[in-house]
Amino acid sequence: MGNLEKDGVSLGKAAVLLVLHTGGAETALQDRSVACGYKVYKGKVGSMDSAKIFAAITTAAKREGLINDRYREEHALYHSILEAYHGICRGQDGLGNVMRSAGLLFSIVRGPRLPNDAADGEWIAIALYGSMGAPIKGFEHEVLGLGINPV
Amino acid sequence: MGNLEKDGVSLGKAAVLLVLHTGGAETALQDRSVACGYKVYKGKVGSMDSAKIFAAITTAAKREGLINDRYREEHALYHSILEAYHGICRGQDGLGNVMRSAGLLFSIVRGPRLPNDAADGEWIAIALYGSMGAPIKGFEHEVLGLGINPV
Amino acid sequence: MGNLEKDGVSLGKAAVLLVLHTGGAETALQDRSVACGYKVYKGKVGSMDSAKIFAAITTAAKREGLINDRYREEHALYHSILEAYHGICRGQDGLGNVMRSAGLLFSIVRGPRLPNDAADGEWIAIALYGSMGAPIKGFEHEVLGLGINPV
Amino acid sequence: MGNLEKDGVSLGKAAVLLVLHTGGAETALQDRSVACGYKVYKGKVGSMDSAKIFAAITTAAKREGLINDRYREEHALYHSILEAYHGICRGQDGLGNVMRSAGLLFSIVRGPRLPNDAADGEWIAIALYGSMGAPIKGFEHEVLGLGINPV
Amino acid sequence: MGNLEKDGVSLGKAAVLLVLHTGGAETALQDRSVACGYKVYKGKVGSMDSAKIFAAITTAAKREGLINDRYREEHALYHSILEAYHGICRGQDGLGNVMRSAGLLFSIVRGPRLPNDAADGEWIAIALYGSMGAPIKGFEHEVLGLGINPV
Amino acid sequence: MGNLEKDGVSLGKAAVLLVLHTGGAETALQDRSVACGYKVYKGKVGSMDSAKIFAAITTAAKREGLINDRYREEHALYHSILEAYHGICRGQDGLGNVMRSAGLLFSIVRGPRLPNDAADGEWIAIALYGSMGAPIKGFEHEVLGLGINPV
Ligand SMILES: [Mg+2]
Ligand SMILES: [Mg+2]
Ligand SMILES: [Mg+2]
Ligand SMILES: [Mg+2]
Ligand SMILES: [Mg+2]
Ligand SMILES: [Mg+2]
Repeated sequence: MGNLEKDGVSLGKAAVLLVLHTGGAETALQDRSVACGYKVYKGKVGSMDSAKIFAAITTAAKREGLINDRYREEHALYHSILEAYHGICRGQDGLGNVMRSAGLLFSIVRGPRLPNDAADGEWIAIALYGSMGAPIKGFEHEVLGLGINPV
Repeated sequence: MGNLEKDGVSLGKAAVLLVLHTGGAETALQDRSVACGYKVYKGKVGSMDSAKIFAAITTAAKREGLINDRYREEHALYHSILEAYHGICRGQDGLGNVMRSAGLLFSIVRGPRLPNDAADGEWIAIALYGSMGAPIKGFEHEVLGLGINPV
Repeated sequence: MGNLEKDGVSLGKAAVLLVLHTGGAETALQDRSVACGYKVYKGKVGSMDSAKIFAAITTAAKREGLINDRYREEHALYHSILEAYHGICRGQDGLGNVMRSAGLLFSIVRGPRLPNDAADGEWIAIALYGSMGAPIKGFEHEVLGLGINPV
Repeated sequence: MGNLEKDGVSLGKAAVLLVLHTGGAETALQDRSVACGYKVYKGKVGSMDSAKIFAAITTAAKREGLINDRYREEHALYHSILEAYHGICRGQDGLGNVMRSAGLLFSIVRGPRLPNDAADGEWIAIALYGSMGAPIKGFEHEVLGLGINPV
Repeated sequence: MGNLEKDGVSLGKAAVLLVLHTGGAETALQDRSVACGYKVYKGKVGSMDSAKIFAAITTAAKREGLINDRYREEHALYHSILEAYHGICRGQDGLGNVMRSAGLLFSIVRGPRLPNDAADGEWIAIALYGSMGAPIKGFEHEVLGLGINPV
Repeated sequence: MGNLEKDGVSLGKAAVLLVLHTGGAETALQDRSVACGYKVYKGKVGSMDSAKIFAAITTAAKREGLINDRYREEHALYHSILEAYHGICRGQDGLGNVMRSAGLLFSIVRGPRLPNDAADGEWIAIALYGSMGAPIKGFEHEVLGLGINPV
C-alpha cells in the first residue's frame, strides 16, 4: 500500500503540479516524484493544429523512454492525451477549426497511482496547462486538462 | 499591468493550486491569492448526481459573496462550472448515468486574470479536483477541470 | 418548383417565425404557411426533464395528425426534435443534470422544403424557442433550436 | 425594468428575426431594435471551413464597433459565436471534415436582454441562419443557431 | 410482415455481417440479402481525412444506384454515414486532427427494416468496420459503426 | 505472431459476431473463439436507464471471471463499455433523457487482439447490439457499438 505522508504525491497531482511549477518548486517536485517511484517529463507545445499537440507528447514519451514500443503502451498514452485534450477544450473539441490557438506546457508522469504502491500496476498521466484564445497576444485565458490510464 | 514576479500567481493557477494544496501550502497560497487581489473559496462535494456539484458551488459562491445577485454574475459562474465539469468528464458528460461517481474538492477564485491587473476587469475561475470511478472504494482515478469566464 | 415570392416562406423559416411571433403576426404567418402547403402546430412545454420536451412534441404531433402512425414518420419527427434540442443546449446536452431549466414554445411544420414545391417530397421542421437558465425567475436567457428531416 | 409592449423585442429574438427578415420587414426590425437600445449588424458568410465563420463575424463586430478592443469583450463575442455554431451543427461539430458546407446570414445584436432594461448590463447575441448540406446546389436544408452571453 | 425465419436477416445485421465476412460467407450473405429484398454494396476506404470516408461512400451509393438523385435520398444516406462515423469515433469525433488514421471496409444496404416487409418502406444502413490508430502499422485496434435511416 | 487463417477471428470481430449470431452459428463461433485463446460471454440487457447497461455488463464480467478484482481491469472494462455505448448512441448520449429505450445483447471477449498472438498482451472487447427507439413495440431500429481496450 502506497502512502501520501510527508512528501508523497499522487500520480495525477504530480502531473498537474509539474506543469504549474517553475524554478525551485519544479525541481523539488521532480525529486519528490522520483522518490514516489514515478518517471517524469515536462515539455512545451503551441499550435492551432491539435494533431501537433498529440505528436509532440507522443514523440517525447518515446524518446524519453516513458513508454516502450508495444502498441498497448502507446494506446494508454494516446487515450491519456485525448482525455487531457478534452479538458482544455471544455466541451467543444478543436483549435484552428473554431479559430483558437493554444500555448501549452505538458507533463508525462508514469508510475503507480499512489506513491510506491505496486499493487495496481503502472498508470500514465498527462497534464496540459497553458492559455487558449484568439490568435492575438493577451487575448487568451488559462486552460488545464488531465488524463490518466493504466499502462 | 499585473505582474507575476516573486509571489504573483495567475487566476487559473491559483484556482488549481488551491484544490491541490493542503495544510501550510494551502494557507500560504490563500495569502498569496489575496495579495494578488483575488477572492477565494474552497469547498468539497461528492455525488453520482452532477446537479449536486453545480448546486454546491453556486450556493457557496453566493453565501461567500463571490458573486452578487445579478444574473450576469451567476451566468459567468455557471459557465465556469460547466467548463470545469467538462474537464473532469473528459468527453463523455455524466456521472450516475454512466455508472460513475465523483468525490471532489472545488475552488472559486475571483479577480483579475493576472495579479493586480485591473485593465481587463474581473474574471471567475472554478477548479474541480478529486477522484472519479466505480462506486467502490479505491476503484477510481484522479480528475481535474478548470473553467474561466469574465464576470 | 416552389417559389418564395410575395408571401412565400420556406419550411424552416416558417417553423422559427411561428415560435417567435404572437398575436396578429402569428395568425398571419399561419395563413401564409397554409397557403405554402404546410401543416403547422404551436405548443408550449417547460421542464428540467428533457424527456418531457420530447414527449410533449411527439404527443402533439400525433394528436394533431402531423405524423401518421408509421415508425418512419415518428423517426423523422424524433430526429428533428433531437436536432432542435441540440440547438437549445449549445454543446452540452442536458437540463436538470447540469442544473438548468427550460421554458419553451415549440412549433411543428410539415410540408415541402420550399412553398408548394412537391418535387422533393415532405419534410418536418421542429423549432424550439424560449429561455434557459437557473431555476430562479429572470435568471435565464433566450435559446433557439431548429431541426429538419425528410418524412 | 424593460418592457416588451408595443414594438419591444427581446435581444435574442431581435437577432433571430434580423437573419430571417428581408426588405421592408428587415428595415422595420432594425428601427425597432435601435429603439430598444440595441446595436445591430447583419452580414453574410459561406464556407466549408468553420474558422471562416468565426473570422467573418469577429471582423465585422470589431469594424462596426459592436465590441471594443478589450479581451473580455472579444471573449463574450467568441462564446456567443461558438454557441450559435453548435446550433447549426446540431450535435456533430464540423463542416468540411464531415463533407458539408454552410451558406449563412449572421446577425450581431448588442444591448440589454430586454428593451431598455439597464439593470442587468449589456449582452451580445449572435444568430446564424442559412442552409447546410452537400456541396451541390439545392442539396441542403435550413439551419439556425443562437448564442447569447453577457459582455 | 417480414420474417426472420430460416435465412432471413434484418437490414442492420446484413450491413454489419457484410463488412465482417469474406470469401464464401460473404457471397452467401449477399445472396441471402438479395432474397430479403435488399440492395447491397461493399467497398473500402482508408484515410486520416474523415471527409474522404463520406465522399467514398456517397460516390459509391450514387454510382451503384443505391440512392437516386433526389436530395431526400442523399440526406438519408448522409445521416446514416454520420451515425456510423460516430460509432467508429466513440465519443471524440475526428481522425487526423487527433492524430489517428482509419482503414475501413464499408457496406451500404437498402431495403425494408425486416426481410420482405414492405409495410414501413425503405431504409438505408451503413456499416463501417476496420482498424483505427496511430499512423504506424499494427498500432491500431478494431472499430465498428452502424447508422440507419428511412429513405 | 497470431494468424487469421482458416478459422481464426480477430478479437473485435469475435465480439461483434457473437452478438449477431444465434443457434448453431453462435456455438461454432464460441468454439472458434476459444481456439483463438479468447474468453467469451454473451448476455442480455434492456432499459431506458443507461446505468443499467453498464451495471449488467460489469456484473457479468466479474461473475464469469472475465476480469479479476484489480481496479485496472475494471477500468479497462469500463472504458470498453463506454466506447460501445457511444456507438449505439451515435452522437447524442443518453436513453431515457432523450425519450428512447434500448433492448440489447452484449458480448464480452477477452484475449489477444489477434488469434493466439501473445506479443501485445490481453485486450477486452465489448459489443452491444439490439434495437433503440421509442418505447413502443416496433418503433425502433438496430444499433451496434464496439469498444476495445488493453487489460
Ligand atoms: Mg478512466
Ligand atoms: Mg473561454
Ligand atoms: Mg440533415
Ligand atoms: Mg449561457
Ligand atoms: Mg434513428
Ligand atoms: Mg482506443
